[in-house]
Amino acid sequence: MSSFLQVTDLQDVYGRIGEFGAVSTERLPIESCLGRITAEAVVSPEDLPPFSRATMDGFAVRAMSTFGASEANPAYLTVVGDVAMGETAPMQVGPGQAVRIATGGMIPEGADSVVMVEHTETVDNTMVEVFSSVAPGQNVIEKGEDVAKSGLFLPPGKRLRPQELGILAALGQRKVTVYRRPVVAVISTGDEIVPIETKPATGQIRDVNTYTLCGLIRNLGAEPLPLGIVGDEPRALRERLLEGLRQSDTVMISGGSSVGTRDYTVQVLSDLPDSAILVQGISIRPGKPTILARCGTKAVWGLPGQVTSAMVVFDRVIAPFVEALAGMRHGTGAVLKIPARLTRNVPSAQGRIDYVRVRLRMEEGELTAEPVLGKSGLLRTMIIADGLVEIGVNDEGLDENSSVLVIPLTWPIRPETGWSGDMP
Amino acid sequence: MSSFLQVTDLQDVYGRIGEFGAVSTERLPIESCLGRITAEAVVSPEDLPPFSRATMDGFAVRAMSTFGASEANPAYLTVVGDVAMGETAPMQVGPGQAVRIATGGMIPEGADSVVMVEHTETVDNTMVEVFSSVAPGQNVIEKGEDVAKSGLFLPPGKRLRPQELGILAALGQRKVTVYRRPVVAVISTGDEIVPIETKPATGQIRDVNTYTLCGLIRNLGAEPLPLGIVGDEPRALRERLLEGLRQSDTVMISGGSSVGTRDYTVQVLSDLPDSAILVQGISIRPGKPTILARCGTKAVWGLPGQVTSAMVVFDRVIAPFVEALAGMRHGTGAVLKIPARLTRNVPSAQGRIDYVRVRLRMEEGELTAEPVLGKSGLLRTMIIADGLVEIGVNDEGLDENSSVLVIPLTWPIRPETGWSGDMP
Repeated sequence: MSSFLQVTDLQDVYGRIGEFGAVSTERLPIESCLGRITAEAVVSPEDLPPFSRATMDGFAVRAMSTFGASEANPAYLTVVGDVAMGETAPMQVGPGQAVRIATGGMIPEGADSVVMVEHTETVDNTMVEVFSSVAPGQNVIEKGEDVAKSGLFLPPGKRLRPQELGILAALGQRKVTVYRRPVVAVISTGDEIVPIETKPATGQIRDVNTYTLCGLIRNLGAEPLPLGIVGDEPRALRERLLEGLRQSDTVMISGGSSVGTRDYTVQVLSDLPDSAILVQGISIRPGKPTILARCGTKAVWGLPGQVTSAMVVFDRVIAPFVEALAGMRHGTGAVLKIPARLTRNVPSAQGRIDYVRVRLRMEEGELTAEPVLGKSGLLRTMIIADGLVEIGVNDEGLDENSSVLVIPLTWPIRPETGWSGDMP
Repeated sequence: MSSFLQVTDLQDVYGRIGEFGAVSTERLPIESCLGRITAEAVVSPEDLPPFSRATMDGFAVRAMSTFGASEANPAYLTVVGDVAMGETAPMQVGPGQAVRIATGGMIPEGADSVVMVEHTETVDNTMVEVFSSVAPGQNVIEKGEDVAKSGLFLPPGKRLRPQELGILAALGQRKVTVYRRPVVAVISTGDEIVPIETKPATGQIRDVNTYTLCGLIRNLGAEPLPLGIVGDEPRALRERLLEGLRQSDTVMISGGSSVGTRDYTVQVLSDLPDSAILVQGISIRPGKPTILARCGTKAVWGLPGQVTSAMVVFDRVIAPFVEALAGMRHGTGAVLKIPARLTRNVPSAQGRIDYVRVRLRMEEGELTAEPVLGKSGLLRTMIIADGLVEIGVNDEGLDENSSVLVIPLTWPIRPETGWSGDMP
């Protein structure tokens, strides 16, 4: 039996990821762009808001007209008009004057602030009592205060969330140039793997990885292309791989990294036109037998056949790659980690990064990370786990009650997330 | 000008949400179920794994054959065969015997554990040296250890992630009964609102809420149905509302909660057939002018027209409602909050819950929550913010350096998430 000659450190694998480019771009209506990645900087063609607006219901005034006003000593202002929504405010507001205005209404010329209606009392049609002073600019959003004309408001490489779509809408950007969704082909390999509709004979198991990997790929906003199961047969794998390379932006092979099949997977990858093996094993656990090859300009990944290992590798290695392929620009794998207290000792071996599955719990305002019990190959450990704790290359383990940083695996994390077996 | 007579506490609003039922169900292939909510408990028809499997490459043995083995004092075992992947293991493993096996291979009868290949040295075809002892069960997943036959493995009301799809695949469940995706109609109201392709005249603004709300709805796995803009005209609003109620499971009206329009929105809702106003104002900020009405069995929401207020209300009130409508069963709005240290004083008023936008930062292993500067109506505050800090009804504010719990608004949180204006 052979094993890997030389495993690669995770940081070096991240470096190799950077050698692959992003997919091509397209111009789409913004309503089709949720979750897409911007492919260009977007500069504002106008001021947002286009005019100074009230942020409260009340009266537009000159702030100085209210200085010193209080319950005991109200200011009396002359109401010189109403601002109708959606219309210009033609009137002028002078000292001692006020204009009735609703949230969103245009601030009339001469006014610089809005007194909240709660701080006023209408005396009659032309007079209002003001019980509180306002500062200039109070309860007003100034013209251009959100985005100034000609300002860069969206950098390239940013994922569009509802709030970014909102800014694009506010600025009248009907369309935006984004990267297209990468297509990721998934091949499941192994003589023991059968389709899920099949009753496995003894020794066989159903194809789990196609379903978990396609789900993980879709969760990243990419398009999975499942290419089915290939037995441990080099020629069949080569043909399926070539099909995947034709139809997709990158190919993931799950399985084929176990002893015996690993060697021929590497051989099949090496024999592809214009190919190179970049990584044969990563110094992480789980996930050591991960392979990265380049075929032409495309990456091909060999993932562990063990589903939980494949899922951890996906989170730590494949997801940053797919995001880079999708056009995101950020430190690879950069995500906020959550500080928590570890509830028990976790041993580890030096010379590799260990990823320990943990469950997060809030206990009296303190967040604890409880290592998930059970063998690492059990799929239900991935259902229970909220996140991963990384044990560094040079650490022999982590002590109970030590402070750790948890990489979230799932979102949102809910108090009762978990395995039904835990429930009463 | 009128104001709300009686605002409702947030917990009471959550109670009203519970009065509405979930949408109907459908039976779908699991590959179409990512993000869907289970509508039934799923019981395992068989053991998972269906046979005891190796979790490491190595040799299947009786653990007792290795007891006492070490580098200095190896055990010598007779290799009596290989287990081919995907096939049964016909041989028996007796004391002093070993069978070559790969990860995922079926443990032959008589063996109870696997010695990792790294702890062995092959002497010749029939003999292997073992340098380390194993315990019974080590490097083996027992038959039924992941899911036992007849065990409940998926409760109803649970969102299906890639790992749940994996368990369903492993157990040969081709289809699963899930709730359908709720359809949520969105109506934007206000005489000042114009379509985004229009150049607004002075006093007008483009329709931002349709885009942000539809994005937020889609992010929850529901189906937005944008119904366009209605001016401040009761009859037109009534017609659009009836259209929305016919075509969707719930309707959201944005705008129409500002003074003046609010009253006729409430009137239009009251005048609908079989309707009742359940909530007219919530004691939260932002979001006070939120309306909840029932029309027949369906909920109609009135949201603030101010986009940032609408987004915060959506996160705290509407999202739990839509999730319940989608079939999720959990404490309303229950989500893990992240402990952090507040970087500055935040004032608040008693008598309402305040939601303060914050930015999370990791500083020397400590997580800090920095209140986002800028007027709350600025859309870019929602682009900068990573989460919300809740200031309770009875609190007058929060002190600098106090410990707070942050409700994440966005995920993943990336170190460089933020507003381009912050960038050099």
